Amino acid sequence: MKELIVSLTAQKQDRSYPILVEEGLLTSCGEVIAAQLPARRAAIVTDSNVGPLYAATVEASLQKAGFAVKTVTIPAGEKSKSLETLRQIYHELLAEEPFAVSRTDLIVALGGGVVGDVAGFAAATLLRGVPYLQIPTTVLAQVDSSVGGKVAVDLAQGKNLAGAFYQPRMVLMDPLTLNTLSDRVFFDGMGEVVKYGVIRDAELFCRLEGCAGRLALMRQIDDIILTCCDIKRQVVEEDEQDTGMRMILNFGHTLGHAYEKWGRYETYTHGEAVSCGMCSILKIGEAHGFTQPGTGERVRRLLARYGIPTQAPRMEREELSRILSHDKKGSGDKLTVVMAQQIGQCSLVKMPRAQFLDWCEEAAL
Amino acid sequence: MKELIVSLTAQKQDRSYPILVEEGLLTSCGEVIAAQLPARRAAIVTDSNVGPLYAATVEASLQKAGFAVKTVTIPAGEKSKSLETLRQIYHELLAEEPFAVSRTDLIVALGGGVVGDVAGFAAATLLRGVPYLQIPTTVLAQVDSSVGGKVAVDLAQGKNLAGAFYQPRMVLMDPLTLNTLSDRVFFDGMGEVVKYGVIRDAELFCRLEGCAGRLALMRQIDDIILTCCDIKRQVVEEDEQDTGMRMILNFGHTLGHAYEKWGRYETYTHGEAVSCGMCSILKIGEAHGFTQPGTGERVRRLLARYGIPTQAPRMEREELSRILSHDKKGSGDKLTVVMAQQIGQCSLVKMPRAQFLDWCEEAAL
Repeated sequence: MKELIVSLTAQKQDRSYPILVEEGLLTSCGEVIAAQLPARRAAIVTDSNVGPLYAATVEASLQKAGFAVKTVTIPAGEKSKSLETLRQIYHELLAEEPFAVSRTDLIVALGGGVVGDVAGFAAATLLRGVPYLQIPTTVLAQVDSSVGGKVAVDLAQGKNLAGAFYQPRMVLMDPLTLNTLSDRVFFDGMGEVVKYGVIRDAELFCRLEGCAGRLALMRQIDDIILTCCDIKRQVVEEDEQDTGMRMILNFGHTLGHAYEKWGRYETYTHGEAVSCGMCSILKIGEAHGFTQPGTGERVRRLLARYGIPTQAPRMEREELSRILSHDKKGSGDKLTVVMAQQIGQCSLVKMPRAQFLDWCEEAAL
Repeated sequence: MKELIVSLTAQKQDRSYPILVEEGLLTSCGEVIAAQLPARRAAIVTDSNVGPLYAATVEASLQKAGFAVKTVTIPAGEKSKSLETLRQIYHELLAEEPFAVSRTDLIVALGGGVVGDVAGFAAATLLRGVPYLQIPTTVLAQVDSSVGGKVAVDLAQGKNLAGAFYQPRMVLMDPLTLNTLSDRVFFDGMGEVVKYGVIRDAELFCRLEGCAGRLALMRQIDDIILTCCDIKRQVVEEDEQDTGMRMILNFGHTLGHAYEKWGRYETYTHGEAVSCGMCSILKIGEAHGFTQPGTGERVRRLLARYGIPTQAPRMEREELSRILSHDKKGSGDKLTVVMAQQIGQCSLVKMPRAQFLDWCEEAAL
């Protein structure tokens, strides 16, 4: 047998990027972007909710800074995280008028998690990679999608089943965009914020407990969001050896994803499903000695104050089992579950899938 | 403004992999794969031409080595390099029976360039990345797709417009698979082989000149193919700083891609279009003092012996200009063209797009 060894290092790539937060940043984003990135043409990808509110502001700011701009608008909603929408985005980005996007241009994802995920995947794959930046406009997108580089679309079999790891060049957040969110969407993101407190930061959790409502939260929202981004950054950086510790970011998500899927992504928003998932796993954790008693109730009270559901739907064991088998993290008969010891501290527990299902049944989820 | 810097290194990934060539390797591939890769389940992606010939052999070998196996078959032909086929592959890979592919499994691309590109792109993106290996069964796929990690699908606007860089874990080649190729498909790959000689290896070129026909080539095909893979490996490795020198691999391709597109990917195969593209650029190179006189004729004679077309189609300037503007390597008004000085030596020439079009017109291509 003849053999040739190919040993290539990764393509050299600067993977360091800033996350910037400032009130009114949408209005000045062009200047900020132009100061850091050489591209002179930018394609904005946004959706039918966010576009009418903010696209004109971003377009104007980019144009003022010397960018030629085109805007692609996709329908708002999770259904747009599809191969069909990806095709639409590719085609509009490649359309000649006013310009076909090339590798030296910039793609700007302006919107919530759906826009960030599908526009990010389009940027990762169009021409095998076009530089992109994110302007997340929801709490969830700001705390969840700014770090980690995960981009994806959904398939018929489940969420985020086709995707990539692709880092943005910058993330820009304007807290003013949060003012146009409905309470449901605003607090949806707070479900993830609570998660960061539970897994890693008791001080953040106490701070949240000290805020009476949306107005109080908004007074310190930039710090709250950057704290969450920083926790995610630390966890992902610590796990460069890929020992799996970054899975703690999935606290509440194993069951949360199952609830989302059970509700066909209509009954629960992501944050709501994760809220129920956290309450369920805390209940199981307390029942089996992993979690300090009372932790679940404390978390439940905080989430309830946000008006987020905290009671999981009743699912048959069979159904839960079937849904869990599609989990990307699954490998064979074992399942890794994130258990909290107390507020601010958690760990990974690997267990037989059947045992986890037993415990879910016992807890009467 | 508040700022957080995210600085992540690339995910740790072993990017070293072997290319193995041996007669009869299809029959023993299971053993060879099992010795190097821990996966115990493998999903073969093949096409309607190659599947009936070789899938059963590969399946049997994998099963004998302890792998559970499933096979996905896509229609043969360039039309399968589409988002639609990608969707089909995702869905069949995720189908429960006999198993849904997970991140710890292995995807095996068995076939020519189309299968390698679309199955590779599916592997790169399914669950954000499933390990995969290539078993290329054509000369073109063996010399062109084994090194570089480029995977892609075509879009309505052009070839390979959506894709990724994704390295295989192994590449296995069985020269016996070349025996079932038609002369047209066999020599199509020889177009690329000639390219490697022209850009980097006068000895390889002379060796090709010394082979009277297919039989003579087949007697040393393993060396010829590994030589091409090794040249590509060197060029890509040398260009880790991304100075652009790896663009010499694109010799004959700037015009070649235009001819392919002009013929709607039906008139010319890839190797045929590159053959015409090489002859065109050598003609231009000789006319403008870049290329040693007589080089073009020597290359044309060798290609003609393979029965490959060497005369470019007559395209209007307007049409050529329009098609070139979609080239992924294009950036603004400049174009980088690969010129050969002589057999075995070439360099990059950056020039105004308009000048290149003038020269093409003068050469009456």
